[in-house]
Amino acid sequence: MAIKPVTPKGTRDFSALEIARRNYMRKVLQKHFECFAFEPIETPSFERLETLMGQYGEEGDRLIFKILNSGEKVNKADLEALKAKQYQKFSRSLSDKALRYDLTVPFARYVAQHQNEITFPFRRYQIQPVWRADRPQHGRFQEFYQCDADIVGERSLWQEVEVLLLYASVFDAFGLKGVTIKLNHRKILAGIAHRLGAEELLIDFTVALDKLDKIGREGVLAALNQKGFSQDALQRLEPLFALQGSPEDKLTALAEWFQDNPVGQEGLEELQFIIKQLRHSNFNAINFDLDLTLARGLHYYTGMIVEVAPPDTVKMGSIGGGGRYDNLTGTFGLKNRSGIGISFGFERLYLVLEALDLFPENLEQHTEVLFLNFGSEAAAKAFEMMMRLRKEGISCAFYPIASKPKKQMTYANQKSIPWVVFMGSEEIEKQQVILKHMESGEQIEVPLQELSKTIYSKINPV
Amino acid sequence: MAIKPVTPKGTRDFSALEIARRNYMRKVLQKHFECFAFEPIETPSFERLETLMGQYGEEGDRLIFKILNSGEKVNKADLEALKAKQYQKFSRSLSDKALRYDLTVPFARYVAQHQNEITFPFRRYQIQPVWRADRPQHGRFQEFYQCDADIVGERSLWQEVEVLLLYASVFDAFGLKGVTIKLNHRKILAGIAHRLGAEELLIDFTVALDKLDKIGREGVLAALNQKGFSQDALQRLEPLFALQGSPEDKLTALAEWFQDNPVGQEGLEELQFIIKQLRHSNFNAINFDLDLTLARGLHYYTGMIVEVAPPDTVKMGSIGGGGRYDNLTGTFGLKNRSGIGISFGFERLYLVLEALDLFPENLEQHTEVLFLNFGSEAAAKAFEMMMRLRKEGISCAFYPIASKPKKQMTYANQKSIPWVVFMGSEEIEKQQVILKHMESGEQIEVPLQELSKTIYSKINPV
Repeated sequence: MAIKPVTPKGTRDFSALEIARRNYMRKVLQKHFECFAFEPIETPSFERLETLMGQYGEEGDRLIFKILNSGEKVNKADLEALKAKQYQKFSRSLSDKALRYDLTVPFARYVAQHQNEITFPFRRYQIQPVWRADRPQHGRFQEFYQCDADIVGERSLWQEVEVLLLYASVFDAFGLKGVTIKLNHRKILAGIAHRLGAEELLIDFTVALDKLDKIGREGVLAALNQKGFSQDALQRLEPLFALQGSPEDKLTALAEWFQDNPVGQEGLEELQFIIKQLRHSNFNAINFDLDLTLARGLHYYTGMIVEVAPPDTVKMGSIGGGGRYDNLTGTFGLKNRSGIGISFGFERLYLVLEALDLFPENLEQHTEVLFLNFGSEAAAKAFEMMMRLRKEGISCAFYPIASKPKKQMTYANQKSIPWVVFMGSEEIEKQQVILKHMESGEQIEVPLQELSKTIYSKINPV
Repeated sequence: MAIKPVTPKGTRDFSALEIARRNYMRKVLQKHFECFAFEPIETPSFERLETLMGQYGEEGDRLIFKILNSGEKVNKADLEALKAKQYQKFSRSLSDKALRYDLTVPFARYVAQHQNEITFPFRRYQIQPVWRADRPQHGRFQEFYQCDADIVGERSLWQEVEVLLLYASVFDAFGLKGVTIKLNHRKILAGIAHRLGAEELLIDFTVALDKLDKIGREGVLAALNQKGFSQDALQRLEPLFALQGSPEDKLTALAEWFQDNPVGQEGLEELQFIIKQLRHSNFNAINFDLDLTLARGLHYYTGMIVEVAPPDTVKMGSIGGGGRYDNLTGTFGLKNRSGIGISFGFERLYLVLEALDLFPENLEQHTEVLFLNFGSEAAAKAFEMMMRLRKEGISCAFYPIASKPKKQMTYANQKSIPWVVFMGSEEIEKQQVILKHMESGEQIEVPLQELSKTIYSKINPV
């Protein structure tokens, strides 16, 4: 019985057009990374299981695709664990390696492994697929690309400025206007928690604040109250809800509030420096905002936090994010390597560019000429001619069998090949061909020797 | 305890230089594929297990990396199979999907799945990694790239000619001289077996013949004798060992031998046609040969068979191979789609180009300018200047902290950055910078407004 030809759930085949668009995105990204002095690395698709497990929390551990050990090694199956329904434990007894879940942990492993070959600060970029055993949904795949740029090895705010300008440059190059780069700072959040007298509740606090959009001011206050914040503390939160205007305005307002709050002040001053430098850069099509509800990766980020929202005209989650971290490589035994990293949401960015019609036209490779096949000797001559054109870089196809010319031309139309060459025995005798433009139907006689020149000038009109 | 930072056995990290070289190879390959009117596709890294299992023989089945089912689904473990030491069966009860083992089966699945969107003849290329649970060895990896081009949908010898000329064009573009494209034909082998009166022993016959290089004429005869070929039959083999000269010479000699042998004659005529067309193409740096010991993929190929040997100066196995097949998509329920395909051995080709020093120099991205950091205000100006250069596409880096200039310049040397810009308060006042060439030590003063023009002309001398 025939096997059903289908891709696994949550995966995609890519056609020529999609590949052309994805390659265009890669090219723009690469060009900017390299202009900003980042260098590429690539890591293997799978890592040792112990490199990945435990790095992404319990939920992450479950979503990591484990690779089954080969051959006899499966006889190490932990049947006790299976019996006890400890499925994770059972799975781990059957697997030594797993598919890459993100690019951050492999990068950390890379830096620790190659620390003696690396010159710090090390600026790397990486564009590779990752895999997650998420339930497939519309727009969410089990295999998708990530695209990261990090600078590791120094603590200098200039690097925060650089990665944000990298964002701005890339979006600018894509013609994507109206993107909002939202900034926050772990120390500002810590300062607020301190002011509420509840540093230890920082995470609870940010989780509640994060929902401001959805549940409003009252909702946030109620949630915080439930978490144990006193009414008195919550009163002190009021100025926070009143913040508005430019990021500079908001920072000025906060500054007053943060008197006698050194942690909070430090965060403020850092963002003030960063935003001041950003303003010098004149990326006017990009918005910058201070968003105190932004609390991504708080278990991980130690300084500035950034998230990128697409233009309002597109309904879509963030198309990028990142921040400053102080302990990338600690789990691999290399301490004190501070770094800053940003990530582009490659798949979402694709959807945004598509929705806003921002992909250039004609990205797809294009066969320019189809040589028709008139059988035996004529075909040999036509084939020879075609090879000459190919040597000059003109993309050509040769119809493989001598079907009726009409059928052959149908093929040209189906493949959107703009030009067709007639070169039968009559034309060969006259040392010429008939060149037909499929769209207009126009036909011209061209001497054999001038064919490549003629076609070249038609493809690349002056 | 720290996790040991190491890549899994049989896998590799790629550095910037390796990536640049691999990208160069991809670019050359892509350009030629597209010039020959092939279009790209990409398929997911994993396929459904049933798509892959049984397609590569028993050995292949064992080398396929299976992905462990997630979560509770592992409770379907077939413990009876485990007990009976049927490890393959046990493994299959734990896995629904597996990593791509080659590009051919996913391509066949693609053609069958998308048959209604495809215009035949369909010419596709694909450059993607594949994974095999082979024992890692020097030069053999568990993750490596394959690179295939196929034409599916028509039976026309012009397509054999095209794929062979594609090989020749690509090797020519790489500057790789002395490659030998070795040809054979299934029908010639069948014709020989027929002449020996042992069609049913075709496979045994070719297996023995394949060892001619190693065990010599006597060895082959002894092996065939053991397989049941009569002395009389073996006598009839003699002319085969005497074949020599150009492929045309060999075919002429065989023609006589194949009188009254329609199958063998058909194979001969096909190769005669193909070689005649190849000769027209004037790829003089490429050798063509007829090699009757070539018997790759005989369970699969139905017409011409090809294998590519690197130049004699490099000790290496074949760097490419392929052939005509008649039943690519049959297992997926789509019958009668004949095709021809060739494959480039991407990883071996890399090693050959490296060994022969054929990679162009300066493929690696290059940071052109390092802006030194002289602290606070001067740094802000320098940073601004750097961003202006980047906008013009010049790759720049900014030293993130105001270390001693000597330390900063050491960084430039370590990263092979050719130019360094001094822009301290004194220079800023004079509206100029000092541009230093690291290799020669030469320093010149350049007015601020002329910096990008000056650097541009240094990087791209006329």
